[in-house]
Amino acid sequence: MSAGSSPSTSRVADLGEHALIKRIRARVPPAPSWVAVGIGDDAAVVEPARGRLDVITTDAMVEGVHFDRRFGTPADLGHKALAINLSDLAAMGAEPRTAVLSLILPADLLVADLDQVLDGLLTLADEHRMALVGGNLARSPGPLCIDITAIGSIRRRTVLTRTAARAGDGLYLTGTVGSATAGLDWLEADPNHGVPGADDPMRDCVARFLRPAPRLRAGQRVARNRIANAAMDLSDGLADAVTQLTAPRGLGAIVEAEAIPIADAARQWFSAHDRDPVASALAGGEDYELLFALPDRPRSRARLLSRLAKPLAVTRIGTVTAEPGLILRRQAGDEPLPAGFRHF
Amino acid sequence: MSAGSSPSTSRVADLGEHALIKRIRARVPPAPSWVAVGIGDDAAVVEPARGRLDVITTDAMVEGVHFDRRFGTPADLGHKALAINLSDLAAMGAEPRTAVLSLILPADLLVADLDQVLDGLLTLADEHRMALVGGNLARSPGPLCIDITAIGSIRRRTVLTRTAARAGDGLYLTGTVGSATAGLDWLEADPNHGVPGADDPMRDCVARFLRPAPRLRAGQRVARNRIANAAMDLSDGLADAVTQLTAPRGLGAIVEAEAIPIADAARQWFSAHDRDPVASALAGGEDYELLFALPDRPRSRARLLSRLAKPLAVTRIGTVTAEPGLILRRQAGDEPLPAGFRHF
Repeated sequence: MSAGSSPSTSRVADLGEHALIKRIRARVPPAPSWVAVGIGDDAAVVEPARGRLDVITTDAMVEGVHFDRRFGTPADLGHKALAINLSDLAAMGAEPRTAVLSLILPADLLVADLDQVLDGLLTLADEHRMALVGGNLARSPGPLCIDITAIGSIRRRTVLTRTAARAGDGLYLTGTVGSATAGLDWLEADPNHGVPGADDPMRDCVARFLRPAPRLRAGQRVARNRIANAAMDLSDGLADAVTQLTAPRGLGAIVEAEAIPIADAARQWFSAHDRDPVASALAGGEDYELLFALPDRPRSRARLLSRLAKPLAVTRIGTVTAEPGLILRRQAGDEPLPAGFRHF
Repeated sequence: MSAGSSPSTSRVADLGEHALIKRIRARVPPAPSWVAVGIGDDAAVVEPARGRLDVITTDAMVEGVHFDRRFGTPADLGHKALAINLSDLAAMGAEPRTAVLSLILPADLLVADLDQVLDGLLTLADEHRMALVGGNLARSPGPLCIDITAIGSIRRRTVLTRTAARAGDGLYLTGTVGSATAGLDWLEADPNHGVPGADDPMRDCVARFLRPAPRLRAGQRVARNRIANAAMDLSDGLADAVTQLTAPRGLGAIVEAEAIPIADAARQWFSAHDRDPVASALAGGEDYELLFALPDRPRSRARLLSRLAKPLAVTRIGTVTAEPGLILRRQAGDEPLPAGFRHF
C-alpha cells in the first residue's frame, strides 16, 4: 500500500502483484491433504481422486458483457464466477474438487472490492468443499475479467454428457426458468437502484441473476443413478439447451409451452412489460437449472428423478423427436422454438 | 458468416458463438484415448495419468498489457499464450497433458486471425503431445484476452517447488537472459516495422519475445533425477526469480554480475541505448528460462545438471545465502539486486 492510503481507498495498482498475491493467500483457507502444492508456486500439484476421472471446465465473466459493477456486490461477482463453472460440473454429474482463478484487474479497482470478490468465491467453494489451488493476476486496460477453471471428479460409468439423448426421451427440467432474465431486466431498468426490498416480489428474481445456485447435488445424484441419457445446464437458456441436446445429433424436440415452469414474479414482470413470458423464459439465459433427457418408460425412472432432485421441483417440458426441427407447442398451435441467448 | 462477407474479412461477431465453437473444433486434432469427453460438452472428462499427480497452472495474455497486435502474428500470440503456461509446468518438472482455452474476443476480431491464434496454440500443443480439451468464448468490450489453464502430470517424489532452496546452494540458470526484453524494445521502437530481417542480429531477440520456448525437457529431466532443491521459471525476470526462491524463506542471495549469460545481440542493444546490460537483463521479464537451486557439492551434481539440460547451456550465476538480502556483486563492488518486472 502506498504511504497515506487507507485500506478502504487503496487500489490494486497501489499494492503491486506480490502484495496482492500475499493478500489473496491470506484469505484462502488451509488446503486439504490431497493438495500437495497450493497457491504460490509455479503451478499447483493435486492428487487426483482415486479411481475417478478428472472433469475440467472453464468459464469467464467479463465486465460490460456479463456484469455491471453497479449491480449487486463484489461478493456476488465472486460467487457467480465460480457458480457458473460449478453449474457445468453439475451438468456432467461431477463433484467439484479444485479451482484456479485468473483475474484481469483494472488498476483502479479497490483492494477492498477485490477482497470481497475473493470472499464471495471462497464462501461458495467452502460450501462444496473445494479448494482454490492457484491463479494468476494480470492488469486490465479496460474491463474487470474473472476467469475460472474448475476441476471435479467422477466415476467413468456415471459421466453425463450432452450427446446421448434419444428420440422419444422426455425432457425434464429442474426448478424454474425466466427469473434470472427478469431479475436482470429489473436491474437494468435503473442501474443505481440497488436490490429489491424484502417485500418486493422481484427480490428472488434479482437474487437468481446475481447469485445462481449450481445444481450440483441434483446432477451428481442423477449421474450416480444413471437414469438420464443426456444432461446440460441452462447457462445460455432453455431454448439453447433443448437445441444443443437434440439438433447436433439430427434430432428434434417439441416443447410444451404450458408446461414450462416460470416463477410467478417473473411471469408477472414479463406480462407487465408486454413480453410473452414463455418466449422470454425460453430465450433468457443464466438460469443455471439442469435439463435432462430420459425415457418416459418405465415411469419409475421419472419418479426417481423427482426424488433425487429434491428439494428442486422437476417438470417434464417436452419430448425429443426423431424428426429434426424444434417446435414450441402452444394452445394456439405450433411455432418454431425461439433462439436461445447468444454471447456474440 | 453474414451474407456477402468473405472468410478473409469476416469478424467474430458475424459468426455467432456456436459457429465459432464449431470452427475451433474443426481445427483441433482428434483427442487421445485418455480424453473421455473433449471439446463441445459442458466440461471435458480426462483420465488422470496413472500413479501421478495433476499439476495445474493458469496464465493470461491481455492486449495492451502483455502484447500489441501490431507485433508478430496471431499465430505468435497463440503460441505464446500456451508457452507461458508450459513454462510453469516445466518449472515443476511436469509433463503437459491437457489445456483449456478461455478466449475473450473483441467483436471486430477477424475470424482469420482467430484461426491463426488457434493454429499457433495447437502447433505447440502437438509438439508436446498435449490435448486442447475444452474452453470458453466470451465477448470483450475492449482488449483481446487469451487465458489458458494447462494441466500436466508428475510423480509425487519428483515435484520441483520454489520453496526448498537452502543456504549455500548454487543458483543455476538455463540459456540466456535479456533477449526477450531487448526484442520487445526493438518492436516498441517502431510498432509498424515488422520483424527483423534474416541478417539482423536482433532477429533472435524478437523471436525470444514473440515465441518463447518452454524449457519442458530440462525441467522434467532435472525433476526426474532429483538434483535440484528448488526451481522456478523466469516469467517475471531473473531478479524476481532469485527473490522468489530466497526471500520468502528468510534467505538471501549473491548474484555475480559477470556470470549472467546475456546474448551478444541483447548486450549490444542495451549498450547502444545507454542501458546497463546486466541491470536490463536482471529486471527484464519474459525470458522463460529456468532457475535451479542445488548444492555445489558434490560437483557431479552440477555436471549432471549441465548434461540433462542440453542443448541448453547451464550457468552458475550466484549463491543462496543464510543472511537475508539480495546482492548484485560487480567488479566495482556490491549493490542491491534491482527489482524484477511487475505486472502492476
